[in-house]
Amino acid sequence: MSLLVQKYGGSSVADAECMKRVARRVHDTRMNGHSVVVVVSAMGKTTDNLIALSREVHAQPNDREMDMLLATGEQISVAILAMALHAMGVDAVSMTGPQAGITTDEFHTKAKIMGIKPDRIRQNLDKGRVVIVAGFQGLSPTEDIATLGRGGSDTTAVALAAALKADRCQIFTDVDGVYTADPRVVEKARKLDEIAYDEMLELASLGAKVLQSRAVEFAKKYDVELEVLSSFDEKPGTVVREEVTEMEHIVVRGVAADRNQSKVTIQHVPDKPGVAAMVFRELAAVNSNVDMIVQNVSEKGHTDISFTVPRDDLPRTQKAVEGLLEGIGAAGVNYDDDIAKVSIVGVGMRSHSGVAHRMFDTLSRNQINIEMISTSEIKISVVIREEHAEEAVRVLHEAFEMDQVPEA
Amino acid sequence: MSLLVQKYGGSSVADAECMKRVARRVHDTRMNGHSVVVVVSAMGKTTDNLIALSREVHAQPNDREMDMLLATGEQISVAILAMALHAMGVDAVSMTGPQAGITTDEFHTKAKIMGIKPDRIRQNLDKGRVVIVAGFQGLSPTEDIATLGRGGSDTTAVALAAALKADRCQIFTDVDGVYTADPRVVEKARKLDEIAYDEMLELASLGAKVLQSRAVEFAKKYDVELEVLSSFDEKPGTVVREEVTEMEHIVVRGVAADRNQSKVTIQHVPDKPGVAAMVFRELAAVNSNVDMIVQNVSEKGHTDISFTVPRDDLPRTQKAVEGLLEGIGAAGVNYDDDIAKVSIVGVGMRSHSGVAHRMFDTLSRNQINIEMISTSEIKISVVIREEHAEEAVRVLHEAFEMDQVPEA
Repeated sequence: MSLLVQKYGGSSVADAECMKRVARRVHDTRMNGHSVVVVVSAMGKTTDNLIALSREVHAQPNDREMDMLLATGEQISVAILAMALHAMGVDAVSMTGPQAGITTDEFHTKAKIMGIKPDRIRQNLDKGRVVIVAGFQGLSPTEDIATLGRGGSDTTAVALAAALKADRCQIFTDVDGVYTADPRVVEKARKLDEIAYDEMLELASLGAKVLQSRAVEFAKKYDVELEVLSSFDEKPGTVVREEVTEMEHIVVRGVAADRNQSKVTIQHVPDKPGVAAMVFRELAAVNSNVDMIVQNVSEKGHTDISFTVPRDDLPRTQKAVEGLLEGIGAAGVNYDDDIAKVSIVGVGMRSHSGVAHRMFDTLSRNQINIEMISTSEIKISVVIREEHAEEAVRVLHEAFEMDQVPEA
Repeated sequence: MSLLVQKYGGSSVADAECMKRVARRVHDTRMNGHSVVVVVSAMGKTTDNLIALSREVHAQPNDREMDMLLATGEQISVAILAMALHAMGVDAVSMTGPQAGITTDEFHTKAKIMGIKPDRIRQNLDKGRVVIVAGFQGLSPTEDIATLGRGGSDTTAVALAAALKADRCQIFTDVDGVYTADPRVVEKARKLDEIAYDEMLELASLGAKVLQSRAVEFAKKYDVELEVLSSFDEKPGTVVREEVTEMEHIVVRGVAADRNQSKVTIQHVPDKPGVAAMVFRELAAVNSNVDMIVQNVSEKGHTDISFTVPRDDLPRTQKAVEGLLEGIGAAGVNYDDDIAKVSIVGVGMRSHSGVAHRMFDTLSRNQINIEMISTSEIKISVVIREEHAEEAVRVLHEAFEMDQVPEA
């Protein structure tokens, strides 16, 4: 008998029928002798509908009121799931984030969890009840309802698992695990049985939209074993856990493409100390999420600075950069949306050499030009033309033999 | 400058456009220099939709979970209204019932307000903000969300007005006040400028569905001046207040018909002490809301007991009565749905005689047979055939000259 935290996302609780399916799954887990805490997202289109309603009365609604509004989506879900469990004879009780003892900071619509006092959850678990907690929300220091931002339900689940010292946190979704590559792009993509936190973090930030990065960071920090699995079948999923030595047998765990970046190049910048600092301080000030940065070799005292930002951040990035050009003495700026970032990830890179060479060589033999490169201990990313993104993923998947099941 | 509590019901906040109209009204009140606390109901069909959703997963959902679910309706409304006010440049903040300091008893789905600690409301009013409170909800002794039952938003508004010692509690609705009779039935029905609490209580319980009885009782108990007015025009409404001597000039304030009653007659009951007590104790035990009771003259040691109950209560009333028949030695029971209760109400009856005579005489001259009669200090009710209900209302309205504006 163990304590499991199960999280069901929006597509798993789209309507009443889905809720009954989730209830059946929770019922079965309970019947197998486990204690269960369930975290649910808002049902189907609820959040989108609430946002649309708010836009009818205000173009840019106040964040605190937005949280007041959106938190109702999860509150509806927890009540409906409790009722569905009651209908199956399972003792269950629903809680809002604040009732579950989840406190956050004061940053409405993107709050961070500051603490969890799980006393009320424990009391109910001790009575044999399934406890259903509204994801994505908590109580702010001013006793207002704050939300963690979209996708925050994963973080709620992991934080609860940490606070309750649960044996595992299971994230149910509409895919059955984490793959070596996007199965829609690579026919031979293989579901992974396990993956290290750090690998998952790199893949999550690369647009393998299975888990929120913050949830994985949280899981790593508090050593919570995560499992990603499908709510639509009964197969085991992918376990995300602390790295063990055997994991290093695999050099490259997965490959992913991120098409959601834009490249900005500031041209002919005087090559003197402090210029780059000025640029990136300004971008940080407007919350522009700079990812890769490349500064070309200086030529006659001038250089080009290129960097990538998420496409959503481009408007404010443009505004900030254009305000800087004169001050730093740059010649101009250009923007390029037709790029993709392709990355290979694996903790095995730490102990294997020649990985970068094999990656660049593979792309080159396929006539794919590399425009920017960045590396970390366990990842190599390149920026290429967007039109080559899928081909790059396919050829790298093959070159690193990711379709092969590793030996035990 | 005064403090007003304004309550807007479901039809006044049906959609985003209605919300903007309400916001405009609140804005104007604020611009006139008043402090404003607003209580809102759920938007349009929200509550009905949530109930329908719950029925998809459970035939009889648990009350505590039902409250968790339904409370979201008002929470959505307060957030949207706050945003709509912000769009007009009005500083406003929304609160759930618990945040507003409203505590209730533990009877989920029909909880009563036990207390209000309006500190947080006051702090925000002091900052010049409009405070918007979710109607119909509060925090139970176990720190669960409890609802006051449908229509409970009126009670929330009156209770807040009492706790804040507001100058007036304005109930905005889709009618423009309280009338001498239903204007759809009586062409000459006249809107009242004022009405006494006790008169309003009698009319509220008679199906003049303008105000919830509990809200009026609360207003009377705490001496809160109520005004019923339309959210769709700017005219003054009807003020419900403590009785003053001038009100007695009017003998009959209004006439109303209640078609929502059933008549039950227990036949040939032994006329001995304790039998009636046994019957009505049993009906109280099953929560049957007995209204009028008539016991006919005893004949050879037996009597008939007739009473009326709301039609909704008939099934459980039937079950309870039929279980008693043998025990009390009654001959049988019959049920009659085709009745209506017609009542005239006025505090002036206390000081005027001959009112009952004029009522009975008017009905008799119009060939309307009276089956039951009950009276209070300020009301006379009769049960007649349902088919005569509208005619009875019309002829009584004319006989008591209710269309005449009273002299000042």
